[in-house]
Amino acid sequence: MSVDNMNSMGAGCLNGVRILDLTQFEAGPSCTEALAWLGAEVVKVENPKGGDPGRGSFAEPPGKDSWYFLLFNASKKSVTLNLKDPAGVALFKDLARQADVVVENFAPGAIERLGLGYDAIREVNPSVIYAQVKGFGEGSPYENNLAFDMIAQACGGVMSITGEPDQPPVKPGTTIGDTGTGMLLAISILGALYKRKETGQGERLQLAMQDAMLHYIRVAFASQASFNKAAPRAGAKLLSGANPPCGIFPCKPGGPNDYVYIYTSRANPLHWQRLLELIGREDLIGDPNYENAAVRAEREDDIDAMISAWTRQYDKHEAMRLVGAAGIPAGAVLDTDELQNDQSFADRGIMQTMAHPTNGDFRMPAWPVRHNGAAPELTAAPLLGANAEDVFNSWLNMDKAAVDKLRDDGVI
Amino acid sequence: MSVDNMNSMGAGCLNGVRILDLTQFEAGPSCTEALAWLGAEVVKVENPKGGDPGRGSFAEPPGKDSWYFLLFNASKKSVTLNLKDPAGVALFKDLARQADVVVENFAPGAIERLGLGYDAIREVNPSVIYAQVKGFGEGSPYENNLAFDMIAQACGGVMSITGEPDQPPVKPGTTIGDTGTGMLLAISILGALYKRKETGQGERLQLAMQDAMLHYIRVAFASQASFNKAAPRAGAKLLSGANPPCGIFPCKPGGPNDYVYIYTSRANPLHWQRLLELIGREDLIGDPNYENAAVRAEREDDIDAMISAWTRQYDKHEAMRLVGAAGIPAGAVLDTDELQNDQSFADRGIMQTMAHPTNGDFRMPAWPVRHNGAAPELTAAPLLGANAEDVFNSWLNMDKAAVDKLRDDGVI
Repeated sequence: MSVDNMNSMGAGCLNGVRILDLTQFEAGPSCTEALAWLGAEVVKVENPKGGDPGRGSFAEPPGKDSWYFLLFNASKKSVTLNLKDPAGVALFKDLARQADVVVENFAPGAIERLGLGYDAIREVNPSVIYAQVKGFGEGSPYENNLAFDMIAQACGGVMSITGEPDQPPVKPGTTIGDTGTGMLLAISILGALYKRKETGQGERLQLAMQDAMLHYIRVAFASQASFNKAAPRAGAKLLSGANPPCGIFPCKPGGPNDYVYIYTSRANPLHWQRLLELIGREDLIGDPNYENAAVRAEREDDIDAMISAWTRQYDKHEAMRLVGAAGIPAGAVLDTDELQNDQSFADRGIMQTMAHPTNGDFRMPAWPVRHNGAAPELTAAPLLGANAEDVFNSWLNMDKAAVDKLRDDGVI
Repeated sequence: MSVDNMNSMGAGCLNGVRILDLTQFEAGPSCTEALAWLGAEVVKVENPKGGDPGRGSFAEPPGKDSWYFLLFNASKKSVTLNLKDPAGVALFKDLARQADVVVENFAPGAIERLGLGYDAIREVNPSVIYAQVKGFGEGSPYENNLAFDMIAQACGGVMSITGEPDQPPVKPGTTIGDTGTGMLLAISILGALYKRKETGQGERLQLAMQDAMLHYIRVAFASQASFNKAAPRAGAKLLSGANPPCGIFPCKPGGPNDYVYIYTSRANPLHWQRLLELIGREDLIGDPNYENAAVRAEREDDIDAMISAWTRQYDKHEAMRLVGAAGIPAGAVLDTDELQNDQSFADRGIMQTMAHPTNGDFRMPAWPVRHNGAAPELTAAPLLGANAEDVFNSWLNMDKAAVDKLRDDGVI
């Protein structure tokens, strides 16, 4: 690890750590972005012709980098390298010699075809941490298959437990197949960095998106173990069974997201009593037809109707305030428009505004963990190749003329 | 950090790191379990009367720890402490003096009422990393509210983008509100550990479950930025708009999870051509009515019907094999029963079997990242208080008689 290139991005936890980032789209970029937010110097290596295909994904602003790209590549640097050119491959190896971590998420076999597989990189940097994301694991019958977020969510069990009970599976709107995978890899990279500081040893890390999904549906595996059959879909309720009231309840004015989630925990019988008091049904406190979760489960429809009649009198924010203040877990179903424009996220640093050179100001979710009271500050996602002089100079001691020559030769 | 208590659990990355774990249910336990799998010594501190309420959650085996508890507490140790007793509080502080990390996820204000808030612990251990999960962030209008996984998913935007377009929101089956939060906190703890190795400085970390959700729905924020309105629900399709075919297609024999996901990427026009070849519709290759994503979007229903007619001829596994082998991203919708019993996960170490002293053998998802070719090995979740002698001796140099006295005095 080099300590002569401290940067002040992020919480500074990883100041001096150099990450060479060959990732694209989301699974890999979300991983390296988290490390950038913690202070690592993350250098994206992109092809000179357009770079990370994520730059052009998802209704991009015409002629500019997409919002999608900005969201997953904040606080990074970018250099271009033509990896079809042997000079580009050699230059990549020069950078890899200076790196603490190399990360890639190309299709199966692609990095080896470029001559930059684990063995090739370890040869030039024996203590490298070399991390890879693929769709399916080595040794899986599908190890050579392509995958994207939704494929991982299908094959990893996530879709089978999402949706209404008598309807087809639904894909969660969370990109857990991508970002969920990226976070697990980030944890292992950080573990490997910690170990390397102690031992000097590098490590190879491999994560498959399908495998990562199992980590996020473990409550469904508890259901599987209890009932020895596939965990069901449960709409807005819980896989683990009814504990009424538990679910979403309709609020004024009846729009697509005008609901409040109300949950009365089995572990705390007071939730149910407090709720009865709130809705003016103290008469039911102690009623044997309602006194515990088991008997309430028998009259779930009645209970839901009773709660709904109350929630319909309020908008979701007011319902959340009233139910929450009464000491019962409750949450309004908030949409992206409400979250994007809620000033309290900006005030707390959870949403931060990136000053982007071509897209302008862009308010987006930043790293949500507060370190000593403050969320790490984000900086703008880089334009393609924006940091060539900086990186080639600080990592490889090249001067501007040498970088210009690389550009003239089509290497970068 | 102590190095005299190396353990061999996990990948060994965090050998010697001591974590004092006051967490319960899932958000906190999933975080400390990940650290245990990387080799940290994680000591759960539980109340002597029943311990972590997760031990009794979700259709537990009668008289035994629940599967839910086993899933989120593998590879940890357990001691009991009566924190209502001043002697218990004093003993906790003695343990905290020896800890690298303290983690808690009690209800808002509870840890301070115990006298074990950040200031109290930093006083006895100035270089401690002190990490907390709450439902809502400090400074949020809801900072004192209770939260559980489903509340975080409601308030963090996840539910608003999950479900069918014209139906109420659905809660994803993934417990992203809990485990998704736990993973982000684990990343920050690891960053703080790395920094502390360099600087000797501790850190306070705080994460709210609502805030963590924004991190996992960033593609919806890209949609929000593009269209300046709330991201919609899209069933099994993508929020980011139609790029047909993209979605689930029905397979034999027509059960609730008999579907295959097929995706043809905009970034690779060959996917569509390959699919036409596979289903015997080469006649449409080059047809201007189908040649790009924009025109295909106009006839999505026709395309879906054409693909469905083909997929209905196969079971989902065969459909996935055929479509995947043709170089098109595809994935069968697998359920927990199929995943639980798929031997390839066990062969690859992604599913591992815990030998539990009372529940018997339990095959469950382990840490899915392979370190140098192997997934870290899990060990059994501890029985309540099982490691008292070990921990009080190795952390505090107490002999068996002293531990017995604590037990007699009702402190542990």
